[in-house]
Amino acid sequence: MKRLKGIGVSPGIAIGPAFILLTGRLKIARKVLRPEQIEKEIVRFRKALATAVRDLEEVKRHIPPEMTQPLSIIDAHILMLKDPSLIKETEEFIRRYYANAEWALRKVLDKYQKIFSSIDDFYLKERVYDLEHLIERVILALKGKNENFDLEEPAIVVARDLSPADTARLKPETTYAFVTEMGSRTSHTAIVARSLGIPAVVAVSDLMNEVSPDDLLIVDGLSGEVIINPSQEVIEEFLERRIRCEEARERLLAQAKKPAITRDGRKVIVRANLELLDEIPLALDFGADGVGLFRTEYLYVTRKTIPNEEELFANYRQVVESLYPNIVTFRTLDLGGDKFAEELDLPEEINPALGLRAIRLCLKNPALFRIQLRAILRACAYGNVRIMFPLVSGIEELREAKKFLQEVFEELRQEGLDIEFPPCGAMIEIPTAVFIADHLAKEVDFFSIGTNDLIQYALAIDRGNEQVAHLYEPLHPGILRMVHYILEAGHRAGIHVAMCGEMAGELLYLPLLVGFGFDELSMNPQSIPAIKDYICALSFEECRSLCEEILQFASAEEVRNHLEAWLEKKGLLP
Amino acid sequence: MKRLKGIGVSPGIAIGPAFILLTGRLKIARKVLRPEQIEKEIVRFRKALATAVRDLEEVKRHIPPEMTQPLSIIDAHILMLKDPSLIKETEEFIRRYYANAEWALRKVLDKYQKIFSSIDDFYLKERVYDLEHLIERVILALKGKNENFDLEEPAIVVARDLSPADTARLKPETTYAFVTEMGSRTSHTAIVARSLGIPAVVAVSDLMNEVSPDDLLIVDGLSGEVIINPSQEVIEEFLERRIRCEEARERLLAQAKKPAITRDGRKVIVRANLELLDEIPLALDFGADGVGLFRTEYLYVTRKTIPNEEELFANYRQVVESLYPNIVTFRTLDLGGDKFAEELDLPEEINPALGLRAIRLCLKNPALFRIQLRAILRACAYGNVRIMFPLVSGIEELREAKKFLQEVFEELRQEGLDIEFPPCGAMIEIPTAVFIADHLAKEVDFFSIGTNDLIQYALAIDRGNEQVAHLYEPLHPGILRMVHYILEAGHRAGIHVAMCGEMAGELLYLPLLVGFGFDELSMNPQSIPAIKDYICALSFEECRSLCEEILQFASAEEVRNHLEAWLEKKGLLP
Repeated sequence: MKRLKGIGVSPGIAIGPAFILLTGRLKIARKVLRPEQIEKEIVRFRKALATAVRDLEEVKRHIPPEMTQPLSIIDAHILMLKDPSLIKETEEFIRRYYANAEWALRKVLDKYQKIFSSIDDFYLKERVYDLEHLIERVILALKGKNENFDLEEPAIVVARDLSPADTARLKPETTYAFVTEMGSRTSHTAIVARSLGIPAVVAVSDLMNEVSPDDLLIVDGLSGEVIINPSQEVIEEFLERRIRCEEARERLLAQAKKPAITRDGRKVIVRANLELLDEIPLALDFGADGVGLFRTEYLYVTRKTIPNEEELFANYRQVVESLYPNIVTFRTLDLGGDKFAEELDLPEEINPALGLRAIRLCLKNPALFRIQLRAILRACAYGNVRIMFPLVSGIEELREAKKFLQEVFEELRQEGLDIEFPPCGAMIEIPTAVFIADHLAKEVDFFSIGTNDLIQYALAIDRGNEQVAHLYEPLHPGILRMVHYILEAGHRAGIHVAMCGEMAGELLYLPLLVGFGFDELSMNPQSIPAIKDYICALSFEECRSLCEEILQFASAEEVRNHLEAWLEKKGLLP
Repeated sequence: MKRLKGIGVSPGIAIGPAFILLTGRLKIARKVLRPEQIEKEIVRFRKALATAVRDLEEVKRHIPPEMTQPLSIIDAHILMLKDPSLIKETEEFIRRYYANAEWALRKVLDKYQKIFSSIDDFYLKERVYDLEHLIERVILALKGKNENFDLEEPAIVVARDLSPADTARLKPETTYAFVTEMGSRTSHTAIVARSLGIPAVVAVSDLMNEVSPDDLLIVDGLSGEVIINPSQEVIEEFLERRIRCEEARERLLAQAKKPAITRDGRKVIVRANLELLDEIPLALDFGADGVGLFRTEYLYVTRKTIPNEEELFANYRQVVESLYPNIVTFRTLDLGGDKFAEELDLPEEINPALGLRAIRLCLKNPALFRIQLRAILRACAYGNVRIMFPLVSGIEELREAKKFLQEVFEELRQEGLDIEFPPCGAMIEIPTAVFIADHLAKEVDFFSIGTNDLIQYALAIDRGNEQVAHLYEPLHPGILRMVHYILEAGHRAGIHVAMCGEMAGELLYLPLLVGFGFDELSMNPQSIPAIKDYICALSFEECRSLCEEILQFASAEEVRNHLEAWLEKKGLLP
């Protein structure tokens, strides 16, 4: 039994076998063998080598016969694997250091890399990657791991990191939980896990090193614990904990459908952030007052071609109908950044988060944008729809986007579609948009603050980058003042202001969000019952005074201390 | 003769031969040959092929004899180059399409890439890069270009893009001008060119395709014109234009050393942004009232090792002494983002601009930071020094940085150094810092607004990315309000507020900067004479009223129109 600790990002307890998904370079442990194990290790190494050679020969069979050039390269690679000096050196390392074969191979690789790096020739330096790739193949064979995505039996998915594409390829019904070595609260894995209601733990140091295929794992998505091959007692402890958690959840669910009204009578609309059709029943069970953010990228990033109008319409119509009479807020395409559609073939960018994404991308690709707007507007006939534009940075962009929408609307009316022009909103997630919120408010029916991006840009940090993750801080006084400023501007213009970032689903921040006067909060469905319950325990007037005090502080630490002291005094600590 | 158009980013006219610097993949033109040229083209192709093979054989000779593996790879590559089907297909393309060999080779490559991309094997897909690399070698040989950096005869440097490392390796004394296919007004090439007083044009479409080695070029760094092999008349026209420009410049220089005081008596300090010792005499000639931004990265990014305290001290002391009694404002290390020190070996980041850079990097590397702070403080003994911290996002970071400085100061005092604690400032270039400028102002002696980064983060665009460069807009009302807000907060706290971004050196923006009440503007030395001259023509009170009007506008377009109308009315259009 071994205990690891990460960040719990999606609550729930899962128990099951590990399924290891390989992405990126493997971590290698240094093991010290007993002298009598040496010969066995060498046999193990030679078998893996043979497997790697066999794999390459298999690859060769897939090559069309007319492709003579690559064949010669693969033959060279096979020769490299069979190279007597590679074998001899690896075996020497095993013997001399009583080392495991994986470590010995890396040592050999390191040695070659050092020699190569001293040579001042770019072409030659590149060749070391060939060697690296080959040695990685042998290490893979040693570990008995494979790169297969087909998770047939239910299991806990273990990976170094999961890209949006990786997560999209996994089937929710056979995934008990996600555990990754990288990541943060707001990384894609975390968001997807929460929206699917699958427990998840991220940022687990040394994970890939410690877990082997089919190890039994316990994953606690609340505490961040990951236990490898637990004892019977620990299994029983967690089974019990799971029951207790589920009971608490049921208590909340029972009252989730009641509206969220503060003790002094202020109603806050609580909506769901959704991405998939499958999530709708869940969102309704959890008491969502409609959908505050429907992400529309899924159909674009999970396949090779861009969906056509009919496909989109069929999908949107089903969403709108399933939620009727509740409101569905469609966010127009937010591609780019870290979400890509293969067919668009966008150029690589040095800073994709600061690049051609979301509304910018749509305005540069009118055909793409029009098709989506047509599909959304056609879905309006089947229920209550709002539209919002992501990543608006200025008034010109907003007007241009609205002009597109107006044109498509006229077009559809001429084609005989009988709908009303839907309410139209701007996502406020770029600092300049905050500073001109008064002007923007005159052009839209509502604002929705996307805190994930807003915090990222306002603090100039990439939320996925571990090196600066410590600076990601929703309680930064600069962030709180921005949020306050947006609400003031929106309410002065008489429009609704919502929040749909991760921040909206956190109990700790809730007194501030209520106090600032949010009309609407939108979050992952799982969080809704607890958030609604907590709103009912708050007083709007008290929260408002709290906000006034908080806005005077200079540092996030002062804000946090004051907030926690206030909560403790009120007996409201989450 | 052929005329191309780009963005002029550093004024001046240069006439000279093209020196082509190869960075990144080459662009290939499709040429249509006359039937009688075909056989000659095939001979040209075969010669280039032979050259590429010879190059690889030369590479082989550099490999230590014990490295048996790479030899087999290079042999395989040589075999690929000699492969009859590669030769046959290329020649067929030349014949069938009357095509140039470069284009035919790319066609062959495209064909292989298509076949490879349909195969679902990662290893095999990677192999196409081998082929791509080899074909690139042949194309290089066809163009007769080389990757040599040694520019011996003075010439105009032509490149796809220039990294900070590339520009650092070029000698100013043999560089007449820079012309690049990529880039923007604020890219590194532009900044370096302006600071060295070398004409530069960036963002020239199709440049690499159109220019051949030793073509005669005319480059106009003001209008953005690039003329390839100009006629005698055009050469004479530009020689004349060059004389006129130089005369105007001399007029400005003659009065550059007078202080910049508005018609109604408000003084604005005009300082220089510097990076190199060589630039100091130039800055003084141009009338700089000291240095508002001394960039300290040069000694870190141009070599393999990090400079030690003595080297830094020697450099800083020279800067401080040469400028005495003027003030020198040292910005502490702003590494990361797009400037890297090899020895630090920083991890690759998906969004480096939002990553571990500037003050963040220094706070994570105390040893690195302390060495620089010691060197700066020791230089204080030789003149007038200010220190400023870049990329401050919150009060905690600022306090931590100041604590380091205080500790180093105490340390040096104990070692017997007799200096006063220097004035200490924060660069305001992150949106959250704007929103808490009132708190930050209480902790420092001055602010300096770094507009390049501030605009980049506030608008969430990478200023180096062509795809979104159209959104980079200093006149965005959100940006102007931020600038105004910082000045108000700084002045309420009684501290000086400076601007040291590119925006400070633009005549068009000057009435706004004067009207907002900047105490100090810092810019590339070349801009100083014209800026000082223009300040003397303005009235502070009139500029202030202008700012009040401008702050009400919703869009950059409205701001620009109003500003231009105002300037025209006043007879002040730059």
